[in-house]
Amino acid sequence: MILTSTGGGHAGPLSAYTLDQLRERRSSKWREYPPDVLPVWVAEMDTPLAEPIAAALAEAIRQGDTGYAATGGLPEAFAGFAARRFGWRPDPAAMRLVPDVMAGIVEVLHLVTEPGDRVVVNTPAYPPYFYWLPRIGRPIVENPLVLTPAGYRLDLAALERDFAAGASAFLLCNPHNPTGLVFGEDDLLAVAGLAGRYGVRVVSDEIHAPLVYPGARHVPFGSLDATAGARSITLASASKAWNLAGLKAALAVPGAEAHADVARIAPEVADGAGLLGVIASEVAFASGEPWLEELLADLAANRALLGELLAERLPEAGYQPPQATYLAWLDLRALGLGDDPADWLRRRGDVALYPGPKFGAPGRGFARFNFATSPGRVADAVGRMAASLAGRPRAGAGGTPVRP
Amino acid sequence: MILTSTGGGHAGPLSAYTLDQLRERRSSKWREYPPDVLPVWVAEMDTPLAEPIAAALAEAIRQGDTGYAATGGLPEAFAGFAARRFGWRPDPAAMRLVPDVMAGIVEVLHLVTEPGDRVVVNTPAYPPYFYWLPRIGRPIVENPLVLTPAGYRLDLAALERDFAAGASAFLLCNPHNPTGLVFGEDDLLAVAGLAGRYGVRVVSDEIHAPLVYPGARHVPFGSLDATAGARSITLASASKAWNLAGLKAALAVPGAEAHADVARIAPEVADGAGLLGVIASEVAFASGEPWLEELLADLAANRALLGELLAERLPEAGYQPPQATYLAWLDLRALGLGDDPADWLRRRGDVALYPGPKFGAPGRGFARFNFATSPGRVADAVGRMAASLAGRPRAGAGGTPVRP
Repeated sequence: MILTSTGGGHAGPLSAYTLDQLRERRSSKWREYPPDVLPVWVAEMDTPLAEPIAAALAEAIRQGDTGYAATGGLPEAFAGFAARRFGWRPDPAAMRLVPDVMAGIVEVLHLVTEPGDRVVVNTPAYPPYFYWLPRIGRPIVENPLVLTPAGYRLDLAALERDFAAGASAFLLCNPHNPTGLVFGEDDLLAVAGLAGRYGVRVVSDEIHAPLVYPGARHVPFGSLDATAGARSITLASASKAWNLAGLKAALAVPGAEAHADVARIAPEVADGAGLLGVIASEVAFASGEPWLEELLADLAANRALLGELLAERLPEAGYQPPQATYLAWLDLRALGLGDDPADWLRRRGDVALYPGPKFGAPGRGFARFNFATSPGRVADAVGRMAASLAGRPRAGAGGTPVRP
Repeated sequence: MILTSTGGGHAGPLSAYTLDQLRERRSSKWREYPPDVLPVWVAEMDTPLAEPIAAALAEAIRQGDTGYAATGGLPEAFAGFAARRFGWRPDPAAMRLVPDVMAGIVEVLHLVTEPGDRVVVNTPAYPPYFYWLPRIGRPIVENPLVLTPAGYRLDLAALERDFAAGASAFLLCNPHNPTGLVFGEDDLLAVAGLAGRYGVRVVSDEIHAPLVYPGARHVPFGSLDATAGARSITLASASKAWNLAGLKAALAVPGAEAHADVARIAPEVADGAGLLGVIASEVAFASGEPWLEELLADLAANRALLGELLAERLPEAGYQPPQATYLAWLDLRALGLGDDPADWLRRRGDVALYPGPKFGAPGRGFARFNFATSPGRVADAVGRMAASLAGRPRAGAGGTPVRP
């Protein structure tokens, strides 16, 4: 049954390339590990570029248009996308080009906090936060999301304690990486209330916002009818949804009362952005929605498929289908593989997941699985995971080996 | 006569595009000012991409190869280029990918200096140094190059005073932007001696190294037979010589005794690099030399043409043909246009040079002219400069107006 769904006739963007074609890529995803390892770790998708993006990039190459980036029409394109998708109307004239969301977070924290100021981050969290925030002298206060049988949720009481203890900023990641949680409007309004009460600035990483599945709704923090929303600064990018991480472009998008802060981003910062990233991102936001819908249909199918495959082949794995993103945050603690199951899986199963401990303390025993690939490769990856455990006594599984 | 040389049949890379084609570009150079302004300011060239680079980028786009960058074969390609061009054999295994030379300088200064440590910089200097070094808490000690009738030279006595006063690092720019000075081996050995004596680490920005004209020779600081050379860290990139500034890739290249320092560059730093930048740069260093030779022939012709044009149309302008780079550092003090002649020229002449004062105090009365364009456009730019002065009394020119 599963093989039928993986080998079916679907021709969406996730199935466009063969494995051999993908192995020709020069990206980190495909070059970090030897060719016998199937990579499902870093947030790169195995899709072709959306046709209008590929055409715009090909034209730029014909024009030799590879000098320093200008912001161009990217803010207007994002504003249009935000209005259509989220009913949010940020002011394009107030946006600033930054090289990527992480660099944008660094810039914004420089502007709205002081050295030594503490920044609250929900964990598990995007690994580069743990490098860059301490690096710029902004210590992280880890605020763990709570894992419930219905998925992760925000712990508002703990958040209030962290705010009350003197944090200066809250680095929200919404939709949340790696859990795929889409914060509800009630939760966001509660966060805004607390941020207002304790004078905490909210910086909102919304890089995954275009990748929300039916049933959930992305509410931009900057769109909230709350002072903390107006004072927030959002980082937006086309890089995740249109697979442009290597082209380097993102926007700092201020709420209505944060224009002056974002205006202080130095022009030198935009020199770090990539011109082809700007060109591709503008096209993505302006005319990339048809492709995005095809992608989301493919991803939704894989999201379900992964659940079926895990239930059959790795029933001890905990998997809550994400509300957004193509990332599955797998609870592998019951497999008895220690803090870093991805290490075992890569060495014994020739399948590379992203190691959970890199996402902070709550990531011990977890691993992140990127299902933005063909259904066949999703099945291959789960098969490799299961095979790596064959013959091995499993904690909590009564020692029953799994047949590969 | 000049019109003959500017309108001739030369078909090198600088003459490949018409002005209308260039105005289609989305880059900062072509979008910063209105279309009636001829841009000769930022370091972008008006060339097509070298054919092997364009082919590699087109292939990457076909493959959808736009995820996070991997280092790939870039270090080996640069090592080969450095060996062939400079007789220098840095160890590719010790090199690290960084987003661009400026970001690489920031990383390296984080590694080899402490907050508050002073960094000596020769002025005039690349403007972003003045933003980024203070931003990371490394104050700049300005060490002016000395302008002589034969061009700029290093002031070794002043450099020794600055080193002796407690500087921690010397950020060398060689070949030097904006003056085009190529430091001679004797000077570099003297610098190395002083650096060794005073315990100053040398960080060498060699982004312009491929762009040296006949008669000068680039000596990599890391190639010097001196302790300070072995302890130095060089930033190298294909971005200037192959016009890839918007693609974001550079290398930190340690001397033999600086491997451990560069090894401490966090892997998160390479996430800021562009994958297409890596792909293009590898091709540039590995097989871009035939194109580079054509380019250098075009540039050498423009370098001479600019001298002829200035002598005829703007004889008060001081111009020392650069030994390297496509940048002319024009001494316009005799024009009586104040500290920022570029402002006048842009407003009155519709020609955008890079404002001298952005290069530090010695840039007052100067402007930088990028002659990496067609001979016809070089002539157009000089014509616009001259026309902007028509009818205006000129300091030091006996009030004789120049006829446009």
